[in-house]
Amino acid sequence: MTEELGTPLLRAPAVAVSGGIAVLAAELEAQGVGVERIDWRPPAAAAADLERLAAAGGEVAAANREALSRMSTARPVVLGIASAADAIGLERGCFLHAGPPVAWEAMCGPMRGAIAGAAVLEGIADEPERALRDAAAGRYELAPCHEHLAVGPMAGVISPSMPVWIVESSEHGNRAHCTLNEGLGRVLRYGAYDAGVIERLRWIERSLAPILAEALARLSEPLDLRAIGAQAVEMGDELHNRNRAGTSLLLRALAPALVASERPSGDLSAAVRFIASNDHFFLNLSMAMAKATADAAAGIEGSSVVTAMARNGTDFGIRLSGTGETWFTGPAGRVEGLYFPGYGDADANPDLGDSAITETVGLGGFAMGAAPAIVRFVGGDSELALATTRSMYDIACGESEAFRVPALGFRGTPLGIDAREVVHTGLLPQINTGIAHREPGVGQIGAGLVTPPMEAFAAAVGALAGRGPARGEAA
Amino acid sequence: MTEELGTPLLRAPAVAVSGGIAVLAAELEAQGVGVERIDWRPPAAAAADLERLAAAGGEVAAANREALSRMSTARPVVLGIASAADAIGLERGCFLHAGPPVAWEAMCGPMRGAIAGAAVLEGIADEPERALRDAAAGRYELAPCHEHLAVGPMAGVISPSMPVWIVESSEHGNRAHCTLNEGLGRVLRYGAYDAGVIERLRWIERSLAPILAEALARLSEPLDLRAIGAQAVEMGDELHNRNRAGTSLLLRALAPALVASERPSGDLSAAVRFIASNDHFFLNLSMAMAKATADAAAGIEGSSVVTAMARNGTDFGIRLSGTGETWFTGPAGRVEGLYFPGYGDADANPDLGDSAITETVGLGGFAMGAAPAIVRFVGGDSELALATTRSMYDIACGESEAFRVPALGFRGTPLGIDAREVVHTGLLPQINTGIAHREPGVGQIGAGLVTPPMEAFAAAVGALAGRGPARGEAA
Repeated sequence: MTEELGTPLLRAPAVAVSGGIAVLAAELEAQGVGVERIDWRPPAAAAADLERLAAAGGEVAAANREALSRMSTARPVVLGIASAADAIGLERGCFLHAGPPVAWEAMCGPMRGAIAGAAVLEGIADEPERALRDAAAGRYELAPCHEHLAVGPMAGVISPSMPVWIVESSEHGNRAHCTLNEGLGRVLRYGAYDAGVIERLRWIERSLAPILAEALARLSEPLDLRAIGAQAVEMGDELHNRNRAGTSLLLRALAPALVASERPSGDLSAAVRFIASNDHFFLNLSMAMAKATADAAAGIEGSSVVTAMARNGTDFGIRLSGTGETWFTGPAGRVEGLYFPGYGDADANPDLGDSAITETVGLGGFAMGAAPAIVRFVGGDSELALATTRSMYDIACGESEAFRVPALGFRGTPLGIDAREVVHTGLLPQINTGIAHREPGVGQIGAGLVTPPMEAFAAAVGALAGRGPARGEAA
Repeated sequence: MTEELGTPLLRAPAVAVSGGIAVLAAELEAQGVGVERIDWRPPAAAAADLERLAAAGGEVAAANREALSRMSTARPVVLGIASAADAIGLERGCFLHAGPPVAWEAMCGPMRGAIAGAAVLEGIADEPERALRDAAAGRYELAPCHEHLAVGPMAGVISPSMPVWIVESSEHGNRAHCTLNEGLGRVLRYGAYDAGVIERLRWIERSLAPILAEALARLSEPLDLRAIGAQAVEMGDELHNRNRAGTSLLLRALAPALVASERPSGDLSAAVRFIASNDHFFLNLSMAMAKATADAAAGIEGSSVVTAMARNGTDFGIRLSGTGETWFTGPAGRVEGLYFPGYGDADANPDLGDSAITETVGLGGFAMGAAPAIVRFVGGDSELALATTRSMYDIACGESEAFRVPALGFRGTPLGIDAREVVHTGLLPQINTGIAHREPGVGQIGAGLVTPPMEAFAAAVGALAGRGPARGEAA
């Protein structure tokens, strides 16, 4: 969330440059982009796993082709908006969060803050401090969004009353859900929970969501997220840290229905102004689209294609198609990027959020070549943006048919991360992300770039090899 | 108007490829892009003119720097919408048209058709055939848009009742005007004048224009076209043949004010749907922005910077800053491009319209590198799009500070065409354009690329040299 006009980051001079693009460049170099890859050799155990998988002949490759085909044919559309209680059966006292499972004791500050805020929103606690105590006492039920057909940016907290987009892959019938984007600044997803945060969430539930739901219902056919996303990528979005085109195209698609509403014009104007003034409003739809796309490829026996990358601020977890719902984890990384004035490395929470689901389907860092404005902001140029996308082809099974990079001759973005290739090449997925303060109650303090821990991929490949491709766990 | 989703061109298979990108490539090559420029030598008279200008020392260069500075500082904003009668004092019986002055006898078919349609719209004639006879009998007053602070796409016809955008360069105070875009298909600007065309124009006057005017009045500050244009170019528009981002950003900027309107929701919905379904709606604002920018640089003694390029379908005319309102012309060229099914070269009218004002300020063909989708549509790739923009730096005085090409490291587009350099290098400005049928009453039949005639530039340089830079005609 670095490059957008109107963000605090652009309005204020950056006071701390913690690596930023120099680090990306160094990482690309270290990972062998543009230089000879002579330094990387998979650990002995991982090399043995790769050999075992190779011995299985073309079975993994065939499974991966199927996974790629399912991702390619996924056509996520927006069915509507409903409360998380209605859409996914979330019950009072239960809170979903980003990333793989994590116990309260190990949970990072911003995620704790978001849960405290959500408890106040739900009327379960009268103040955040009480909620923090109740949660620590084990009185709340906590679960990953990904295990309830959902994704959430940053802390990713979803509670029952929150409205969620309902997205369905029309080709495969699987559904994915995500909350409505709260805007920038002090927001729940970055761990802030003050009265203004709660009031905005109540307004989203009371006014914004019903207005949007009515507009969606008034469309002649469901909103085609893949079509909007394809246009947006052609218009300079990578649909993770840059969603300006996606947001503009969404509003353009909904505008005729929005103006037809009989609701009070002041309410309508407030709703439209909220969307129009937030370049990231489309992010949550991009994430639901990505989740619906990735899940369409889940549960294919023997496939080493990654179907989820997600961080809870403590651990980074991935899932493979061929290993079902099992998480393979490693420590969440330090985000290299830029900080808002007054903040620095010491304040930063480790990598956080389900938004890396976008990279999982060829967006975000994988589509960086389409969005050079992001790299430019941290001092890089369009060549580095293109190099980032180009390097990801080496760990991808194929190329997106929907998301294409104009500056690469409209080549499709790298699609379907093959965990084997990550382990084999040592090349880690490039992920764009925001930076949250490590304490609950503060919020966003910066944005930047990060890579996942290699051990998650090595563990996943090990599990796949240990069972053999013919006995992969079904989803 | 070639590449947009929803145009007849994309929906129907193209049946005739008349050169297209192959021609562009050949022209670029012929003009020395990427090859040694050994073939071009200015005609003897033109060479003498260039020598005379060179003998004047740095005076032309200084004048051109001033022209470039004025274009760079121009900040066109939208003041509102009014009828051409109110905004520019256009009187009943007077019709403005695109390009340099042209008598009825020499006027092309689509322009005659548009004037006939406008006469019916104004109630001056009861049917187009009658209008054609009256016009031929000299009963109408005809004048170029450019001579009345206006520009018009294709035939460019403006009559008194038509609503026009009022655009002002806030830095310099000069104004420019343009009609509201009619959409695609059978439209007046392509010479169509059937009942549907007239009815749409009446709806624009009666409903669309007042709704937009009210929305503009409700904004907290006037719409900044340069800011929207800069974002749009970063999002893949060149703002001549591609206006998808511009149109989306315009609607996004106006949406909060549009939904706040108390007008009947059906009227509002129809207005918003009209804009949202027309990727070219922003074109007419892009042209008014360009005219306001170019005019800010007009009338600088001795300057060889081009301040207008415009075609009436018979002649192609240019103006220089240092030669005031004088037109220098040559025959309008044949457009190389793609035709709608059923049409071909024999049906095509020569190059037409004021829209080359966009190229005059570094947009259109000059910003092609930012909009590879246009080139791709006619079989080229992003490299050719970049080559087109790169080649234009050789005839430009400087670079735009507003319009930047991401794939060129955000380099500003070539700005301020130096007529001397056109004559010196033999490199002609690259212009994107639509193709109208040569007969009145038909409409658009294709789109493509064109270059202006060299003699217009040679004549302009000759006039500038003949008078000497110190005696340039003041505007």
